Amino acid sequence: MIVGVLGGGQLGRMLALAGYPLGLRFRFLDPAPEAPAAHLAERLPVDDYENLDALKRFAHGLTVVTYEFENVPLAAARFLEERVPVYPPPAALEVSQERLAEKTFFQQLGIPVPPFASVDSPKDLTRALKTIGLPAVLKTRRFGYDGKGQIVLREEADARELPFEEPHRPLILEGFVPFTRELSLLSVRGRDGSTVFYPLVENHHRDGILRLTLAPAPDLDPQLQAEAEAVAAQALEALNYVGVLAIEFFEHAGRLLVNEMAPRVHNSGHWTIEGAETSQFENHLRAILGYPLGATDPVGCSAMVNLIGDIPDPAALLAIPHAHLHRYGKTSRPGRKVGHITLRTPDRATLAQEWVRLQQLLAEE
Amino acid sequence: MIVGVLGGGQLGRMLALAGYPLGLRFRFLDPAPEAPAAHLAERLPVDDYENLDALKRFAHGLTVVTYEFENVPLAAARFLEERVPVYPPPAALEVSQERLAEKTFFQQLGIPVPPFASVDSPKDLTRALKTIGLPAVLKTRRFGYDGKGQIVLREEADARELPFEEPHRPLILEGFVPFTRELSLLSVRGRDGSTVFYPLVENHHRDGILRLTLAPAPDLDPQLQAEAEAVAAQALEALNYVGVLAIEFFEHAGRLLVNEMAPRVHNSGHWTIEGAETSQFENHLRAILGYPLGATDPVGCSAMVNLIGDIPDPAALLAIPHAHLHRYGKTSRPGRKVGHITLRTPDRATLAQEWVRLQQLLAEE
Repeated sequence: MIVGVLGGGQLGRMLALAGYPLGLRFRFLDPAPEAPAAHLAERLPVDDYENLDALKRFAHGLTVVTYEFENVPLAAARFLEERVPVYPPPAALEVSQERLAEKTFFQQLGIPVPPFASVDSPKDLTRALKTIGLPAVLKTRRFGYDGKGQIVLREEADARELPFEEPHRPLILEGFVPFTRELSLLSVRGRDGSTVFYPLVENHHRDGILRLTLAPAPDLDPQLQAEAEAVAAQALEALNYVGVLAIEFFEHAGRLLVNEMAPRVHNSGHWTIEGAETSQFENHLRAILGYPLGATDPVGCSAMVNLIGDIPDPAALLAIPHAHLHRYGKTSRPGRKVGHITLRTPDRATLAQEWVRLQQLLAEE
Repeated sequence: MIVGVLGGGQLGRMLALAGYPLGLRFRFLDPAPEAPAAHLAERLPVDDYENLDALKRFAHGLTVVTYEFENVPLAAARFLEERVPVYPPPAALEVSQERLAEKTFFQQLGIPVPPFASVDSPKDLTRALKTIGLPAVLKTRRFGYDGKGQIVLREEADARELPFEEPHRPLILEGFVPFTRELSLLSVRGRDGSTVFYPLVENHHRDGILRLTLAPAPDLDPQLQAEAEAVAAQALEALNYVGVLAIEFFEHAGRLLVNEMAPRVHNSGHWTIEGAETSQFENHLRAILGYPLGATDPVGCSAMVNLIGDIPDPAALLAIPHAHLHRYGKTSRPGRKVGHITLRTPDRATLAQEWVRLQQLLAEE
């Protein structure tokens, strides 16, 4: 069985690493010869993901197609779907690619989201600010990731100086939620409709980029887990979803608000490689191939730290007893995710100790 | 960094799967286009491992060379050693390739081994049987694996009917040890001489092929673990060893006798992928690259079952909550190791339950 993956980044690479033990083979569609997944699987080059000839060559002989980034052109997913099963369903891609559609999707299911309004002109913004108030976050509706395409408005003056681009890009204004913490839930739905959920994890961002995930989230109220699972179950069902779905939440006053979703394996689920009975990567593959889903129980407790820009001395990292290093085979570049480390320990006390050691090491670099 | 591996079987495949997260690349030397490791890494074809041109091409640009089967021609390892570091050291290969040299090696270190004698003629055999007695095992001194090249002598008549081959192959007669159980120890020695040891595991063979490993070995006396580690430490030191070394023991009357060793990652260590803090594959790579060795603590308790000949229905296997499937990408063939399953559970009670379920499933096939 050959699994086709649109995109050959680190998520694709980790999918392949999880899939080889299942006896799968992989084919990646990616423009970059040095794409992380290309080190360990077949890669077909592509100039443009909407190049139909390339898509046809890519689809040939595949068992199933999936993707590892959500900005896959919808047309490409639809074109492939006529030839080979594509999971998660392109409808989920469509919803997640546009923030207004995404927020509306959850709102229509009766799931709490921060207040939001579409902004297509300076006049829209004035109107939206009146309803939503300050502070608020103005975001591009498409192609935002890792905090890119976002601006926080704290005072009215911030709104007056907005650099509206020409040609105009559709925007969304979202109320700024004074959240206690950011949590995310990885859920998986199989082809037979069965679902499993990982424990909620706590995420810490800096400059819009995920830095740290604590798994399971410390001091996790079982009620909150149940609430998150109910939200995910509704979304999975509504989308007739197959695969891993990540949902990011704000925890505020003991309740959850949906921030956004990603129809793919997710950075906040990397801890599952060591820290859960079945990794998110294996479970995504099990789901899209119609295999039974794997157990999601945590194994010990974990902290996942992204390595941004550069890899510290690997020997120093590997000297930390419970540190598991994951390099993506990428060259160094400021702000680039080049790897991650998961500390997976038997208990929180050990985790705290090794966390201090890891922090010192990262600070020295 | 590129790691060169002589042989591209399942051990090589699992080495690569453990090494990609460390940011390594791999090159395998193997005659078979469908070698398990060739699915996920560069493979150089070779007609004969002593083909110097092929070895030169193979060595080009490598950081280090290792091997995944011990019948690598010694001359090839020596030739490569002049160009690039080769670990484990070829001296270890030499000792382990010849049963007489291997037994003598341990005996000279004062380590208990079953009684043995070299047999190069029917007269030698008569003499050896007088010293060693019956039952005994007559083995070829070279190229034996998975019980091949062995014959158990129970009565004097068995010895009379021996099919001595022409040209004559050197043999060894070993006293048959009435062992309680078979145990093995995986040890690792780094380039700086540091060592770590995994817990002893209990192995069950059928028809000379490993079927089941229980890890850690049930009811393990800490004294026995200490004894095994002392044996391994002596052997590692004497060979100036670097990498994973597997030593198989017979447990008899509360003591250990060395049966044989393998200078490589080992089938009885496959459980470490899920069942130990650091897998034997990652630790082998850490050792040969000069990185700090990883912790060897068990994570829960594990049972590793080899899949011989054929893979049962993967969906049924994956439905067992703590089952981790490892397929090697090989075609089915009677007696061939095509994969393994590790049950890694939080406790022995769960392990026992799932073991029953797995046994039923394997019996049905």
